[in-house]
Formats: sequence, structure tokens, C-alpha cells
Amino acid sequence: MTGALICLDWGTTALRGWLVSADGAVLDRRTGGPGIMAVEGSFEEACHAFTGGWRAASPALPIIAAGMIGSRQGWLEAPYVHCPAGFADVACRCIAVEGKDLSLRIVPGLSWQAPDNMADVMRGEETQVFGALESGAQDGVFILPGTHSKWVRVEAGGIVGIATWMTGELFAVLRGHSILGRMMSVDASHDAGAFAAGAADGLEHGNQLTRRLFGVRTRGLLGGLGEAAAPSFLSGLLIGAEICAARRMPDIGDGAARVHLIGDAVLCQRYAEVLGMAGIAAHIADAEVTPRGLWRLARTAGMIAP
Amino acid sequence: MTGALICLDWGTTALRGWLVSADGAVLDRRTGGPGIMAVEGSFEEACHAFTGGWRAASPALPIIAAGMIGSRQGWLEAPYVHCPAGFADVACRCIAVEGKDLSLRIVPGLSWQAPDNMADVMRGEETQVFGALESGAQDGVFILPGTHSKWVRVEAGGIVGIATWMTGELFAVLRGHSILGRMMSVDASHDAGAFAAGAADGLEHGNQLTRRLFGVRTRGLLGGLGEAAAPSFLSGLLIGAEICAARRMPDIGDGAARVHLIGDAVLCQRYAEVLGMAGIAAHIADAEVTPRGLWRLARTAGMIAP
Repeated sequence: MTGALICLDWGTTALRGWLVSADGAVLDRRTGGPGIMAVEGSFEEACHAFTGGWRAASPALPIIAAGMIGSRQGWLEAPYVHCPAGFADVACRCIAVEGKDLSLRIVPGLSWQAPDNMADVMRGEETQVFGALESGAQDGVFILPGTHSKWVRVEAGGIVGIATWMTGELFAVLRGHSILGRMMSVDASHDAGAFAAGAADGLEHGNQLTRRLFGVRTRGLLGGLGEAAAPSFLSGLLIGAEICAARRMPDIGDGAARVHLIGDAVLCQRYAEVLGMAGIAAHIADAEVTPRGLWRLARTAGMIAP
Repeated sequence: MTGALICLDWGTTALRGWLVSADGAVLDRRTGGPGIMAVEGSFEEACHAFTGGWRAASPALPIIAAGMIGSRQGWLEAPYVHCPAGFADVACRCIAVEGKDLSLRIVPGLSWQAPDNMADVMRGEETQVFGALESGAQDGVFILPGTHSKWVRVEAGGIVGIATWMTGELFAVLRGHSILGRMMSVDASHDAGAFAAGAADGLEHGNQLTRRLFGVRTRGLLGGLGEAAAPSFLSGLLIGAEICAARRMPDIGDGAARVHLIGDAVLCQRYAEVLGMAGIAAHIADAEVTPRGLWRLARTAGMIAP
């Protein structure tokens, strides 16, 4: 099979790529490219450098990119598509980038005006959800854990709601810059018992998170929580608090029969464990949903022949 | 009047002192001493240097100190007194420090085992609450805003419960080290409208704090929240979330008729505003409750004649 499309997942801190065939099979993959914050020179130069090997034989190979590359800080701003948004809405709103010897489109992100006086946004995760749907996943809630954990509600194959939780970033800033970090080993490995204890605390008391965070400290002072176990406790607490609140949120976590997890395998496993403690079975999606979603968007947008 | 007692509030980052008469009148005050993290050399040397001027004429002047000076990282650990704890319980458990030409006692902190599987602690705030009670405050909830905001429940003149909220520290780490800080002016002044909007959000949706924090970002992207107003919105959000959760907490915020605020005047005013939005009238205590509490403890402990 020969390559028909280059797919890029171009985020804030990383750039990954796949070469796929006309029928969507992944032929090759690359990691380690510069995220949009690390690009030196122009985005066009960075794109040429990262995809040049694949395009040596066929320079006209089309490229499709999702992620923060379409943000105001990226190459070209691709305006948000408002939810509810189906697959075709997003495909039709991909933005063509003008560049020398480049045929490139950028996938727009999605935005949602939640009924509780807050807007939400995402860029890149919509493509992963579409990829999972394309791979056979059905309506329900899709959780994409990470720095900014996303809960994406899908009904009738379209995205109807988004909720973002700053779980990963809170963990990082509290560990790196707060008094809690001072009682944590730098090189601690995962402590399953402490993680589960933190998760139980978050699931039950997540509605008073700023207090339970101080509980990490008092457990260290009085409760026998050691420096090696404290990071796992904090991680469980934050994930538990996220799941506690998200499950109660109208239009996102409430009443959803199916819960899917997409992302880093270890992190998905941690979320599956805490969801299980809350009585919720979750299905972990196949890892390579991004090229699947990008290929399908490119085909719908007419970038490659169906 | 001549000085009869030196009172020290010796915390993690600051040391303040007062010279008081036998009947508790403040005769002189000093600020700017080193907190326990900044002490170079021994605590004894630091104490001599800070109090030497007051002790030049009468070297035997007794000294009483409250705060983190009594923690494991301080001069001498004064073990926590468990709640419920009255004034006399704390006075009798002050720890005498042996030192050359020094007559010094350190006030112990308090600890509380909350019924919801969390312990809580404080060092220094108990003295402020006792000082407020000595100045005429009555039973109720005492809120001491700050890096680690304390809610202290007082019944029949004794402290029966403690709850700590990492509100101030969360504000500092999010402003200094998270993506939210990147959309904030460094030198922003207080924006009353943004503060009130954030407080309303926190009061209503504080149970999903990690999501509402992301709302600070989406308000910047889509909702017109400017860089100068964003810090005030975040401050209001965190204070609102604290008050939202604390008011529902059994044995702390629920059903308390009287709410007192102790601490920095501006911060107390902000808390009073958000409490007012929640329909709660709060009384702001006199600023110098610390020497009042220390003087009373010293007298009960027999350090000075009644």
C-alpha cells in the first residue's frame, strides 16, 4: 500500500504524525516533533521538516492536522464549531492553509455553551472521539484524561457537550509549587493503596476539594502518609473529585450508560479503576484513534478519494 | 505603664512582637522579624535579637510565642492539643523553652479529628480566636482567611472544630504557575465586578471547582474576561467555593448564627462581601487580637501576675 494522507496531531507541547493509506491503514508513524510552543522559525518550515521524508516521493501528499495548531497561538486560527456538532459539521469547517508546496487543512476545535453559565472548548479531542466512533464505539461519555481532562458527551453520533477539568495541571502545580509538594518524594513510584485511598476521599468529598487537599498535609503530619505515597494519594484525590462532580453534571455525566476512555494507557487504567470504585464500567479505546479520526475527516472533506 | 510581657506571633514567613503591660495594654509593637524558614543561626539568637531592645532594662521579662515556632520545624515542638479544647487546656499545655537568660513559653497548636475521615490542625490561629473571645466576641464560627484559610467553631467559649481550606495557596500557585496565570496581568489591581462574578460562580458551582477553574480560561477566550480582571475573578471563585462548601460542613459552618472574621483588613472585607452574597452577616474582629490572646494565656499559665 502507498501513502495517501499525512495525519498530524499538533498540540501545545508535542507533534506526532502518521502516514495512512487511502483506506485508513496506518503505514508509518513519527513522534518527537515540536509542539506549537517549541516551533522555531515558521510553522511551514516545521511542517516541511517533520513531513519531508514522507513527501519526498510524492510532494503533493495531502496533510490534515488537529490540535492547538488551529488556535490563536497556532498556524492559522480555525474558529470553533459550536456543539451540538456532528462529524460532517467539523469536516466541512476544516481550514485550508496556503503554503508553498503544501496541501494542508486544519481541523477546527469545538465549543459548547453549558447551561450552567460556563463555556467550554477543546481542540484535538474531537478528532479522537470521532476516531473512536469510527472504530465502533457507541454513544455515551468519552473521557480523555490529561492536563486538562475532557468529558465529551456523544448522542446519535454527534458531540452534544464538553466539560473540562484541570485535574492534571492541578496535580502538577500542587506537586511542584505548593506546600504539599514539600512532603513528596521526587522519584516516587505509583502506590496503589494510597491512590485508592485518595480516590475514595475524592469520590466522597470532592465537593470540598480545597479542604481535602489540606488533608494530604494532615495525613502526612498525623496519619502516616509517607513521602513516597503522597503523590499517589493526591492523584487519586483529584481524579476522584473530577469523577464525583462530572457524574452529577447534567448533559455530561448523568445517566450516560456507556463510558469510554481515550488516551495514555496507564492514565486510562487509573481512571478506569476510580470509575470502577464508583460502580461505573468503562471501556478503554484503542490507542490510535487520532489517525483514524483524521483520515475519516479528510475523506469527508474531499481531501482524498473515498 | 511598664512592660510586663513580650508577645510573639512567630510564623513560617514572619515574626511580629508586642510589649504589653500587666493588664494587657499594648505599649509597643515590632514587625519585620524572620519567620521560622528565614532564621539564620539559632532560634535563641533570633529571639534575643528581636526582643533585646525591650529586655535591655529588664532581662527577665517573660516571653510567650504562638505559631509555627511550636511546630516540628520550629524551636521546640509543642504537641497539638485535641479539640474540643478550652482556653485553660491550651494555657496549661504551653511548653517552656530552656535558654540562656530567657523565660519563654510556646503555645501549642490544636488538632481535630473531623467526623468525615480527615484530621485538621492549626498553630497560631487558636490564639487569635482566644484573643477575639477575650475582646468580647461570642460563640460562633471564626474565619481566618489567608494562605490556608481556617474556619474555627466555638461553643461555650471552647474550640470544638477546625477546617482548613487551601484557598490562598491555590490562588498563588494557579496565578504563578498554571495556564490561568498566563492570561493575567502581573500588576492587576482589584476589579470589584470580576471579583463578584467569580464569587457568584464559586458559591453556586464550588462543588465542581476543577471545572470552574477552566472557566477562567474560557471566559478569557470567549467571554470577554480581560487580563486585568482575571485575577479578581479567580480570587472570587476560590473564596466563593470555600464558603459554599464550608457552610454545608457539619460541625463547622452549618447552623452557626454568628460569623466572625479575623485577619488582614482587606482580605476580611472581601470575605465579608462574599458571605453577604450568601446571605450571611459577618463581624470583622479588631486587628490586634493576637497580643490580647497571648496576654490572657500568659496570665492563666502563671507567667505574669493576674
